[in-house]
Amino acid sequence: MPYTAPTDEHLHLLRNVLGYERISSTERFEDAGDDMIAAILSEAGKMAQDVLAPLQRPGDLEPAHLENGVVRTAPGFHDGYKAIAQGGWVGAAADPEHGGMGLPLTITTLVGEMMASACLSLSLNPLMTQGQIEALEAHGSDAIKALYLPKLISGEWTGTMNLTEPQAGSDVGALRSKAVDNGDGTFAISGQKIYISWGDHDFGGNVCHLVLARLPDGVPGTKGISLFIVPKFIPDADGNLGEANSLRVVSLEHKLGLHGSPTAVMEFDGATGWMVGPPHGGMAAMFTMMNNARLGVGTEGLGVAEAAYQKALEFALERKQGKTPVDGGTGTIADHADVRRMLLTMKAQTAVARAIILDTAMSTDLFNATQDASFKARAAFLTPITKAFGTDTGSEVADLGIQVHGGMGFVEETGAAQFARDVRVTRIYEGTNGIQAMDLVGRKLMDGGDAAFAMLDEIAATAKGNEALAKAEATLRETTKALLDSEMNARFAGATSFLRAFAITLGGHYLTRGADTENRRALNAFYTAHFLPQVDALCAAATAGDALLYALDTDALAG
Amino acid sequence: MPYTAPTDEHLHLLRNVLGYERISSTERFEDAGDDMIAAILSEAGKMAQDVLAPLQRPGDLEPAHLENGVVRTAPGFHDGYKAIAQGGWVGAAADPEHGGMGLPLTITTLVGEMMASACLSLSLNPLMTQGQIEALEAHGSDAIKALYLPKLISGEWTGTMNLTEPQAGSDVGALRSKAVDNGDGTFAISGQKIYISWGDHDFGGNVCHLVLARLPDGVPGTKGISLFIVPKFIPDADGNLGEANSLRVVSLEHKLGLHGSPTAVMEFDGATGWMVGPPHGGMAAMFTMMNNARLGVGTEGLGVAEAAYQKALEFALERKQGKTPVDGGTGTIADHADVRRMLLTMKAQTAVARAIILDTAMSTDLFNATQDASFKARAAFLTPITKAFGTDTGSEVADLGIQVHGGMGFVEETGAAQFARDVRVTRIYEGTNGIQAMDLVGRKLMDGGDAAFAMLDEIAATAKGNEALAKAEATLRETTKALLDSEMNARFAGATSFLRAFAITLGGHYLTRGADTENRRALNAFYTAHFLPQVDALCAAATAGDALLYALDTDALAG
Repeated sequence: MPYTAPTDEHLHLLRNVLGYERISSTERFEDAGDDMIAAILSEAGKMAQDVLAPLQRPGDLEPAHLENGVVRTAPGFHDGYKAIAQGGWVGAAADPEHGGMGLPLTITTLVGEMMASACLSLSLNPLMTQGQIEALEAHGSDAIKALYLPKLISGEWTGTMNLTEPQAGSDVGALRSKAVDNGDGTFAISGQKIYISWGDHDFGGNVCHLVLARLPDGVPGTKGISLFIVPKFIPDADGNLGEANSLRVVSLEHKLGLHGSPTAVMEFDGATGWMVGPPHGGMAAMFTMMNNARLGVGTEGLGVAEAAYQKALEFALERKQGKTPVDGGTGTIADHADVRRMLLTMKAQTAVARAIILDTAMSTDLFNATQDASFKARAAFLTPITKAFGTDTGSEVADLGIQVHGGMGFVEETGAAQFARDVRVTRIYEGTNGIQAMDLVGRKLMDGGDAAFAMLDEIAATAKGNEALAKAEATLRETTKALLDSEMNARFAGATSFLRAFAITLGGHYLTRGADTENRRALNAFYTAHFLPQVDALCAAATAGDALLYALDTDALAG
Repeated sequence: MPYTAPTDEHLHLLRNVLGYERISSTERFEDAGDDMIAAILSEAGKMAQDVLAPLQRPGDLEPAHLENGVVRTAPGFHDGYKAIAQGGWVGAAADPEHGGMGLPLTITTLVGEMMASACLSLSLNPLMTQGQIEALEAHGSDAIKALYLPKLISGEWTGTMNLTEPQAGSDVGALRSKAVDNGDGTFAISGQKIYISWGDHDFGGNVCHLVLARLPDGVPGTKGISLFIVPKFIPDADGNLGEANSLRVVSLEHKLGLHGSPTAVMEFDGATGWMVGPPHGGMAAMFTMMNNARLGVGTEGLGVAEAAYQKALEFALERKQGKTPVDGGTGTIADHADVRRMLLTMKAQTAVARAIILDTAMSTDLFNATQDASFKARAAFLTPITKAFGTDTGSEVADLGIQVHGGMGFVEETGAAQFARDVRVTRIYEGTNGIQAMDLVGRKLMDGGDAAFAMLDEIAATAKGNEALAKAEATLRETTKALLDSEMNARFAGATSFLRAFAITLGGHYLTRGADTENRRALNAFYTAHFLPQVDALCAAATAGDALLYALDTDALAG
């Protein structure tokens, strides 16, 4: 499965579209200058190409599985993981105080994209650990930080997130797992958790579970939930592994994709845990890292989109069928208008997803470096778009990739179908894309639309002299106002369409800003003709209200 | 995998939207009156529900496989096939002269939909045989008809289609298989064919291959291709099976879906065949049955869409998460606006696909019964829309079905993902959906747009008093004119968008005509707000021309 890191595209976006120098000129990130990041991207790209990409098919063909209660990972995954850890990539964004590289999220996001392109299954492992590092950095006690962070950042230990239970998916507050104070600074954690990515493995070291559970005096709902760290092996104060904790992998799921990534049902049976953050403060702690987790999942979608596009392009430029319809063509199916339309759609949409994701990451970095609240608001507004549009793009581009392959796309050997299977769950986990859309029209418009209008103002400035983009921006602005004037359930009814309209309009903004060569202008012209006109229809659906959705009896849904 | 045949919906469409009595009032189909078809649909529905639906999961979990050169089918498939054959469903549309039921395509299409809903993998087997029956009825010699048709129609023997070769997919004319005259009325067929659905099985009887091959004096390209029937076992004149023919299954593909349906690589090594139709007339013979084959594949998509919708609706009406946002709701996730939007999208799009498909089938029946050429032109125009929109609907609705299931949608156990995997190839085979679109804007506009404008006139009549539909129709009419004035490659550049725009506008036409209850009016209102506005954007893309597609260097596609 050949993959080439799109380093030129990354640098173009950083330098010519998003103004990366705004980050490297801050004190916090002064070490991450242009030469430095070019070197980092090049090194990560080589690892993705040479070490991780060869693991993509084996991970699918020989899934992680349970052997006598122990997870056995796919062939080569242990070595691949070691390469990630030894490169320092697990802790690339983490605080140097505990061994991290302290890189901007902007850069680690691009590294994450490349790892996801090369082998999504394996890349989920460090992604989970990164979330845990972030949670402990923000909410862990000094003792917990000192014990866990160096091991997690070095990759010696890995981390997981234990939120979901069978009856508590999108409704986390319905969880039933219990935590009882042992009176010695530890808690006894009991309950069953599902969908635990990389819940166990055979890479050695420790597996550290962050678990949401309810203390005896925890109120029902999200406000009564606390967060605990529950290691597979109980470490001593020096981090030496001791006895096994009272937890186990009950089973692994048989999934549509991501076969290389073990998805566990976990059972905690009075397992020893340590509280992270204050009692009943579990959801607040989760929220801290939720934004970056959503950025990470959007990036998974982007990574798969890029890889699926590269694969389809390579196939199209080799496959000959029929006479070429154009003079001076390649003689391959890439000359055929409809195939070319698909390839351009894939390329343009991937570029747009990348720009939105990078803008989110940069806004977070800029807030962290400057404490300017406007960047925080911008990142918060862009985050649900990043997650939903990034992952939708992953699925849609991978699906087009299958189509470009024709009959070969349906044959697993080709690898085109695996991209579509693997990426599908990214639209579901870390908050379904429907929930992202509800977040956008709900919580993210609670500022009266300030963050939305700030983005729209920026788009309007870009749109000067670009009639199609100006029209899309104006329609979107009216739609934003209309939603602000609507009841919440009417907003929810239009949420998915609104999010998509915003993403597509943002795409015109970024591609127009980046149109500095003839080829980039050509891509933008294609996008302007094929994507921007969709904004009208999406905005119409976004403001159609909720009554339409309930006018049909529930009984008649089945009729 | 529970499935309920949507008989009420079928009868509504036949009686209230499409005027089925136009068919049953013809002499040819006078026996297929309203009571008769209701009984037939009910009987086929029972078989689909009770016999075929239970085979859906086993076919996926225990795929057809090759054992010492022999195909072993999934558990239960042999019994399921016997039920189909004994019910007379293989030859339901075939000529009664050779044992068929002579039913209108309109009815057999609905039977096909139900079989595809219940178990797409198995349903492909009779579908292949039906194509062969049609080819032999139209082009076989009397001897071939007398020998093969009774056995195929009864289901004792099955049929396959052997077109594709590794270098000859969409470009059938590039095929290399050879046919040499043995001088005794038979031909020696040699070559390799790929993607042969149900190329072999263990159901007993004979497997009859229709094979495209080139005679020594056949010119290059499609005009030098002839058609042959090549049986697995050479029958005597009474149909008793004799010696094995010189052909074999080389391997079976490992596919994204349809694991229950063996997809074979076939090797013919001087196999004995009999010519069907005249020398070098193979493509013409294939074209005869291509329209109905495309109708059949569109129907596969429809069947999966219906089944995926039923599954998602059932899940949504059981799953409780969070507080219901509406008074008097069900308390399930079906109350949530975004979930309800997905369910309504699935329901509306499935209904529209079904109406387009049935209109195509009815137009064919009406031509066959009356020889009125306008019906032939209408069927021909609708056929690429039926194939592409039917199968796109299958994939899109199945994908929404996964999303409605949330995390459970990614777990194979649920069955939601299988629908998406199984149906994916229908957008590729029998002419990719891109090729369907090219057919629509190319061949199907060669009448100067007569067939298109006749449909548009009909839509315009329905649209009186329906502003949104009238607007969509007007835009589509202008777009049709613009395409008629465009060079062919510019039409091809807009083909996929044009086909989609036509399908969506047709949807408004059928749903408006069928809006005879409050619930049906509600579904149409939803469709009007959420689907019809897309026509503008699609028409803009349809007329954007081909220059945009080639402005980006081929090299820069990779950059």
